[in-house]
Amino acid sequence: MSAELKNDRFLRALLRQPVDTTPVWMMRQAGRYLPEYRATRAKAGSFMALCTNPELACEVTIQPLARYDLDAAILFSDILTIPDAMGLGLSFAQGEGPQFARPITCKADVDKIGVPDPETELKYVMDAVRSIRRELNGRVPLIGFSGSPWTLATYMVEGGSSKTFSKIKAMMYNEPATLHALLDKLAQSVTSYLNAQIAAGAQAVQIFDTWGGALSTPAFREFSLRYMQQISAGLTKEAEGRRVPLIVFTKGGGQWIEEIAVGADCVGLDWTVELGDIRARLGDTVALQGNMDPGLLYAQPEIIDAEVARILASFGQHTANSGHVFNLGHGIHPEINPEHVKAYVDAVHKHGYQYHA
Amino acid sequence: MSAELKNDRFLRALLRQPVDTTPVWMMRQAGRYLPEYRATRAKAGSFMALCTNPELACEVTIQPLARYDLDAAILFSDILTIPDAMGLGLSFAQGEGPQFARPITCKADVDKIGVPDPETELKYVMDAVRSIRRELNGRVPLIGFSGSPWTLATYMVEGGSSKTFSKIKAMMYNEPATLHALLDKLAQSVTSYLNAQIAAGAQAVQIFDTWGGALSTPAFREFSLRYMQQISAGLTKEAEGRRVPLIVFTKGGGQWIEEIAVGADCVGLDWTVELGDIRARLGDTVALQGNMDPGLLYAQPEIIDAEVARILASFGQHTANSGHVFNLGHGIHPEINPEHVKAYVDAVHKHGYQYHA
Repeated sequence: MSAELKNDRFLRALLRQPVDTTPVWMMRQAGRYLPEYRATRAKAGSFMALCTNPELACEVTIQPLARYDLDAAILFSDILTIPDAMGLGLSFAQGEGPQFARPITCKADVDKIGVPDPETELKYVMDAVRSIRRELNGRVPLIGFSGSPWTLATYMVEGGSSKTFSKIKAMMYNEPATLHALLDKLAQSVTSYLNAQIAAGAQAVQIFDTWGGALSTPAFREFSLRYMQQISAGLTKEAEGRRVPLIVFTKGGGQWIEEIAVGADCVGLDWTVELGDIRARLGDTVALQGNMDPGLLYAQPEIIDAEVARILASFGQHTANSGHVFNLGHGIHPEINPEHVKAYVDAVHKHGYQYHA
Repeated sequence: MSAELKNDRFLRALLRQPVDTTPVWMMRQAGRYLPEYRATRAKAGSFMALCTNPELACEVTIQPLARYDLDAAILFSDILTIPDAMGLGLSFAQGEGPQFARPITCKADVDKIGVPDPETELKYVMDAVRSIRRELNGRVPLIGFSGSPWTLATYMVEGGSSKTFSKIKAMMYNEPATLHALLDKLAQSVTSYLNAQIAAGAQAVQIFDTWGGALSTPAFREFSLRYMQQISAGLTKEAEGRRVPLIVFTKGGGQWIEEIAVGADCVGLDWTVELGDIRARLGDTVALQGNMDPGLLYAQPEIIDAEVARILASFGQHTANSGHVFNLGHGIHPEINPEHVKAYVDAVHKHGYQYHA
């Protein structure tokens, strides 16, 4: 686990230290677009069987690194491991998305759930982190992650995915104390879960606030941001003699970026904002991660190359205090041609050098 | 049709003229949350049968005015009437959303479609507008509408609804000339469609750019905004001795609001932005419409009342050049309790007076 890191571009960029070129990874880089992932997934039998098997989770985490010159690996897992460990009964019906057998409907339901102990109730995740670190052997850093309390709560209250968030919004407006009790338990759980991932070997962590953008500004502050900041305050700041950077990614959160940046080393951005505009607003006080439209990967390689160049130019020349990690603005879609991903990764490194003088 | 308008608050606010209190309407106010709508819909047999029957379309348009003190009526129709008239074969499968039998896949498909003549190929819409104007008899103004070219194109290329917009994004990036040809035909069609609605009696028009927010900033400018501005330039500016105001609503478009405002009398806003922030950015050069979270209508009436008050306060005191039309940030959800809508409408008028001195 303490093998020297051969490529630390990603960690350096998150901490706004000089790098030779812009580092790159991709949300959901271990995923269905890769035939080798689909083969391992088939061997596991189900998505949850893959998540809960540390050896197979390690295998799929490493797969994209064999194909692409990526600057980071990300733990293969699902954001819903925490509510599953809380006893809500998670399943993934074929083509249906996640479903909970026992969703949260009232204060009594919230009172019944506990804060899972990561090293026992989520041991399979920590085992996967340890396996991946061994397997990586210092090649690139490993990212741990969790869903944000608000994002986890949407699934737990709705019982699965939702377009309208009708149940959780009714709870939020009519019974805010119930939702706050749930979010507080989730914030405690996420903090201990991420700290356990760091203890097991995660070298950076990302909070995925996938559904924060479904909220109004005051509701975002009260029900999402506040709990992410509670987590940020409770996270282990250093491990193996290095700072463990925190990336916070609220999809659709461009309008709140100054507030999201508080307590984060890096903010993730979706593709609907201009990187240069956001950099101007934040003034190199935090690193930025993003933000190519995942839909660009449907385009031909030369078009991907040109768009990568445009986004790097939008960020612009680096200074002594700037940091940029290239990424998509959301997870890669399952139908993408793996050859197009190669064009994306290579374009970032090729065009990135000129901005790091 | 030329009956004097008894309540012109809505039109005056759109043109930033003084009003006694803030006007209010609601996207999808004629819709499934109303039992009387569901009864008429059942009588029609199908959603498209309701859309294409001017008498029944008129009936459902008027229904919410009988219950609520709304300041405008909006034509009951669907944004996909134009692609249907282009021959793409629209149907609505039960619980499946819209589907096109003959989606657009290539340049030859684009070349085959024409610009529909509104008074023949979309006569049922114009007949509905005329019936509604007769029925309203000057009670409140009637809003006409269309989807934006980009939004219509997403359905036409995907063949229906989409989460990832994989087909249209592949076309956008790989064959931009094909998509531009389609968008240009759509912009011509929308212009003539809205002008025909105005000629038939629509007193304001709104462009629904529901999916503009799925684009990056440069793609939004090139593939959505440009064609809305082409429409704006071609619209009839005056009818019945009054200006016909144009409302442009890009869901998820808060970051581009200065650009969207060009050529519009009013910009619609979703609930993820703060009205006061947007007003400060635009400086009373355009009216604003919005922006309560439709999810608030799941809350109890007193909570709806408080949120309406908060949004009015966020906009703040009116000046000689300001205009605000209260609305939801998106269409009302079908499961909403109709009593909650009454709380919403009444709260706007009650709290609005104090901001119009």
